[in-house]
Amino acid sequence: MPHPVAEAPATAANTRGLDALFDPRGVAILGASSDPTKIGGRPLRFIKESGYTGGIYPINPKSDEVQGVKAYASIEDVDGVVDLAVIALPAKHVLSSVESCGKQGVKVVTIFSAGFAEMGAEGLALQGQVLEIAGRYGMRVLGPNCIGSMNAANGAVGTFAASVGVPFAVEPLAKVALVSQSGAIASEWVVNGKQTGLNFDPWLSTGNEADIQLADVLAHLAADDSVEIIAAYLEGCRDGERLRQALAVAQENGKPVVVLKVGRSEVGATAAASHTASLVGSDQVFDALFDQYGVIRVDSMAELFDVCYALSVGKLPQGDRLGILTGSGGIGIIAADEAAEQGLQVPTPSQALQDELKAIWPPAGVGNPIDLTAQLMNDENLLPSFVDACLKDGAFDSIVMGLTYMGLLEPWTDLVVRALRLAREAHPEAPIFATTLSTPEVKRAVEELDIPVFDDITKAVQIMGRVTDYALRRQRFEKSRAAEATQAPAASVPALPEVFTEVTAKAFIAEAGVPVAPEVVVSSAAAAAAAQERVGGPVVLKVVSPDIAHKTEVGGVVLGVATPEEAAEAHDRILESARRHEPDARIDGVLVAPMITDGIETILGVVDDPTFGPVVMFGLGGIFVEVLKDVTYRLAPFGLETAHEMIREIRGSAMLDGVRGAAPADVDALAGALVALSNVAAEHRSRFDSIEVNPFLVRPQGHGAAALDALITERVTP
Amino acid sequence: MPHPVAEAPATAANTRGLDALFDPRGVAILGASSDPTKIGGRPLRFIKESGYTGGIYPINPKSDEVQGVKAYASIEDVDGVVDLAVIALPAKHVLSSVESCGKQGVKVVTIFSAGFAEMGAEGLALQGQVLEIAGRYGMRVLGPNCIGSMNAANGAVGTFAASVGVPFAVEPLAKVALVSQSGAIASEWVVNGKQTGLNFDPWLSTGNEADIQLADVLAHLAADDSVEIIAAYLEGCRDGERLRQALAVAQENGKPVVVLKVGRSEVGATAAASHTASLVGSDQVFDALFDQYGVIRVDSMAELFDVCYALSVGKLPQGDRLGILTGSGGIGIIAADEAAEQGLQVPTPSQALQDELKAIWPPAGVGNPIDLTAQLMNDENLLPSFVDACLKDGAFDSIVMGLTYMGLLEPWTDLVVRALRLAREAHPEAPIFATTLSTPEVKRAVEELDIPVFDDITKAVQIMGRVTDYALRRQRFEKSRAAEATQAPAASVPALPEVFTEVTAKAFIAEAGVPVAPEVVVSSAAAAAAAQERVGGPVVLKVVSPDIAHKTEVGGVVLGVATPEEAAEAHDRILESARRHEPDARIDGVLVAPMITDGIETILGVVDDPTFGPVVMFGLGGIFVEVLKDVTYRLAPFGLETAHEMIREIRGSAMLDGVRGAAPADVDALAGALVALSNVAAEHRSRFDSIEVNPFLVRPQGHGAAALDALITERVTP
Repeated sequence: MPHPVAEAPATAANTRGLDALFDPRGVAILGASSDPTKIGGRPLRFIKESGYTGGIYPINPKSDEVQGVKAYASIEDVDGVVDLAVIALPAKHVLSSVESCGKQGVKVVTIFSAGFAEMGAEGLALQGQVLEIAGRYGMRVLGPNCIGSMNAANGAVGTFAASVGVPFAVEPLAKVALVSQSGAIASEWVVNGKQTGLNFDPWLSTGNEADIQLADVLAHLAADDSVEIIAAYLEGCRDGERLRQALAVAQENGKPVVVLKVGRSEVGATAAASHTASLVGSDQVFDALFDQYGVIRVDSMAELFDVCYALSVGKLPQGDRLGILTGSGGIGIIAADEAAEQGLQVPTPSQALQDELKAIWPPAGVGNPIDLTAQLMNDENLLPSFVDACLKDGAFDSIVMGLTYMGLLEPWTDLVVRALRLAREAHPEAPIFATTLSTPEVKRAVEELDIPVFDDITKAVQIMGRVTDYALRRQRFEKSRAAEATQAPAASVPALPEVFTEVTAKAFIAEAGVPVAPEVVVSSAAAAAAAQERVGGPVVLKVVSPDIAHKTEVGGVVLGVATPEEAAEAHDRILESARRHEPDARIDGVLVAPMITDGIETILGVVDDPTFGPVVMFGLGGIFVEVLKDVTYRLAPFGLETAHEMIREIRGSAMLDGVRGAAPADVDALAGALVALSNVAAEHRSRFDSIEVNPFLVRPQGHGAAALDALITERVTP
Repeated sequence: MPHPVAEAPATAANTRGLDALFDPRGVAILGASSDPTKIGGRPLRFIKESGYTGGIYPINPKSDEVQGVKAYASIEDVDGVVDLAVIALPAKHVLSSVESCGKQGVKVVTIFSAGFAEMGAEGLALQGQVLEIAGRYGMRVLGPNCIGSMNAANGAVGTFAASVGVPFAVEPLAKVALVSQSGAIASEWVVNGKQTGLNFDPWLSTGNEADIQLADVLAHLAADDSVEIIAAYLEGCRDGERLRQALAVAQENGKPVVVLKVGRSEVGATAAASHTASLVGSDQVFDALFDQYGVIRVDSMAELFDVCYALSVGKLPQGDRLGILTGSGGIGIIAADEAAEQGLQVPTPSQALQDELKAIWPPAGVGNPIDLTAQLMNDENLLPSFVDACLKDGAFDSIVMGLTYMGLLEPWTDLVVRALRLAREAHPEAPIFATTLSTPEVKRAVEELDIPVFDDITKAVQIMGRVTDYALRRQRFEKSRAAEATQAPAASVPALPEVFTEVTAKAFIAEAGVPVAPEVVVSSAAAAAAAQERVGGPVVLKVVSPDIAHKTEVGGVVLGVATPEEAAEAHDRILESARRHEPDARIDGVLVAPMITDGIETILGVVDDPTFGPVVMFGLGGIFVEVLKDVTYRLAPFGLETAHEMIREIRGSAMLDGVRGAAPADVDALAGALVALSNVAAEHRSRFDSIEVNPFLVRPQGHGAAALDALITERVTP
């Protein structure tokens, strides 16, 4: 629950000191208590039993030893190296303690104490003083108002969380690093993992985030070779660029980040804002960020555990073609329904493969879902034979198996393990998920085959969907990174004009690469005729005057002008009529623009998000935006692949494929415009409040697109 | 997996014999085996140990006793009453066995044997012979190709399913009756329930559904006072009316029906059709059916278990206002997000209540979600005090609590049970769900307080959402039943015209109560003038001729006619122009209709579903139907409440609230039209293939609505 001090956002994640936090040479506990159940006593109790080999220094002015460990009156009395100091003292003692830590050369202080920014202005001021002192000594601060950190691998305890003392009910299979903005959540996840065999280690909770932010920790973990998967609990973020960079490091290093970001709903966002006492950022922009950086966003703790489990135990698919193998038609249908929900393909096997499967076991249903019938429970070779045939054929990228209760009940428990072992031996890298009720022993035996075991078929397919989506995003990232290396540099972005009017705004975006309807302002009948001739089709003529608001009412608009002669005549008629109706109006000329009637209306926009900076918005015009709120966002800048993703993911996307017999729209032109707009937005970040290109007409394939209007609002206080 | 014989649909659920199936006076096992692991041996093994007190009659011509029980060479040799006979013999022996059963006065034969309709034409013929013989003796048939039935309450075993022999890992709390179209699914659910304490009993799987259909069983269970909750697994249905009536009985008796209906996706529906070898029916129409009869449709087995668990253990809410109580802000936000997803309200407490809560524990967060802070873990009176204050205030209809791991770890396990007991004692009927990791003992102690315990906060809120939705539907049903009792009879439905043309179709629906634009066909200029005068606003005039397809091209249409004089003149001009262009055309007159430009385009329709008969469709016009497929369905007939539900539940519903400054639309007129159409569809069922009222313009509130066109397609083979 970050309670920030007011400060200018930093530009990069700051990982300094975090190595010392997770791997300190010595740990001091300020306020160490001889009562091992108290907040000051628990860290000492934990670290005594954690296997930590560095120096342990309880600080307590009233005693020479605490819980049997030599104690010091002040940290300044300690004769060894102290990298990490945890402060378990009331707020009023914190400033002097931090000062002492600084003098002793401590690298990170973790402050458990409450009574800072979360308590209002006075606490905020106190928090500022902590930062000032720490800054003087180059120390990092975790918290205040946090439960601290833990690294079980080396026993570095920096927390009082009860979860540390909880034994594993199931021997863990894999480690997942965890960073959380809520101490209670971190603690619950650690306990939960210990029940199910998921080892959240190291973990850390950021509290008020006075100094160390979630993004800093994320960046540190993303660069740490010993960390394979990162889980995060996120309520909000005050420095979007820092978070963006941290996620970029994880993406670059191919490290999955699984995030439970709360505040999706209005009531949730309100609760999060009140909980963090800070800006939480638009949830849709977080979605954009996560999409761009391949983050796996989950909607519940349970889903987070399942995704982490699948990533730890299983293999990553290379594509989205799912094979469903069951011993029951019903289970297969349930799986197929969920596959559709997840956007996974469930391809029908080729006739050759179907024949091959039928040859193995004639009663089988050999479509997909594949029904091996109850014979699955009698013959341990049946399942591996089917898997082998399917995978050799290349029919599927992944397999989910529905094995009911074979893992739980005699006489099937041994058979199911043997069958899965045979399947795995023949295909060591195949992504396979098994679904069965199971004994702990069977579950572990199957997991050791790199096959995650689920207890519900729908959940298994759902998680396969999430993992597949992640794998495909990662592939696209690798591809686009490779493409970038050989790509020509992006077109240069134009400089800003003096003043933005409709005309200069359109000229500006046009120069940046957003196609704009080629209108010209003319001041003679001959020029009007020439303009029509250049267009070569029907044009519209409009009077241009700062004094005439309603052009039609003064006869200032003529539509469907098809020839140069008509254009010349219309030009004169417009001027004559306008002068007659409004004798005093200043008239700047007559605008000539092509009549475009074959385009689909879209809206392109840029908003300056207070957390993440310029964000590009895309949606279809009319009711799609106004009634259905059918829009999507991405952080600027981005490339063509991302632009096409935006175009495909809106609900009304089919409008662009051609409906009611219309031709497909020129989505390449649309994607190009989105990329160009994103470059403008990124280059001139903080200069705009918003850009709106509306309508942006996307014409039939091969005919491009054209902005008919553009509105740019500059930022008043840049 | 129903494999039906071809037959005319019955008109009502047939529950005859099902009491004997679930409570037989004697059970015969044809093909009883001395090997207790074989299909013929298992039923005998199970029933010997089940506590069944009726007669047990193994039939085996080769032995005098089987598994220590006296055996008979033929069922005709049995000297006691046999109500249920299970046949565990190869298909070729089934006919003679059924004949013998008939002679012996058996009421139900359950046929395990495969080799019938599921194997193609020959098997289908054999299945027909079975039915013929059973029909002669008035016997019901379960299966063939099924795993049978079980009633643990009296030990009546009619199955070979291995699940019967599985002991309960957790003592069950409540019973849920189960009917399944898949034997494997029934068996898996029973085993799964035994692991978690959910007792699926009685249960039954319907196999090929040659005679006994899922709907028959549903109707039987719905009328059985000993059954409180019904779970069902459904792949398809060939007799929609039978299913509808069964669900109506359950609704009438206030009995929740929880259904996993598969085939929601295209690939799932295809798999289901292939699995059942029969028509599965449109999934959207099933949704309509379930909505109308208050069925709880779930998307996974896990959700079905959770809903059944919550209904068994918990209390039903009376409204949708959820209170969220936690000891951690983060958990509360997660809960709030899911509440929004479920359509639950999360109202902020009144200032008075907030003050009251602050007085109890000042550091608490007293918005909703309510954060009791970690003090929740120290003071057993805190939680009950908060619950008491909230419920006395009437702030919430239900409460979900996030209690992290208090149910699992010392020293909190006793405290959490005591706290919940205090809360329950003060509010015996409050719907409360708890979320905590827990020991089996704590879980059971809390469940005994009628408080379901979940291990994930999102799941707890999701299930509260499902249960609340059920409770509100049930309330609406009770209300509408009460209203019906005092309501005037519905308007009579008009008789069908000789032939349906646009004109007779419109007249027909108008007479039925669907407002139609008041057009008249006139044959003189004076009549045209009079018609315009009656409208009192702009009208359109169109030539009426069976020989003129493109009216505009012959000058046969005049728009925006504002006065009687103009109308007279337009009449003559149209006739003159039409005669000039098409001298030989028969001209029936000139149509005068008001120009309606202030309506929102909608589409009303009726389709004749092959399974469920007439179904009314509603959607908004244009892209809403064509691109977004934003339509909803209900089985005809229905009342105003249902019509308003349809109007509210489409995605584009906001269009009718008034967008871009438009006035709200006259949804009462729209709802009335839907009801009228549903009455027509029901009254003349099987006479139409389809009715399409498109466009149906819904005008601003108070101005009604008007159909501009109607197309009725009669059924060619009624």
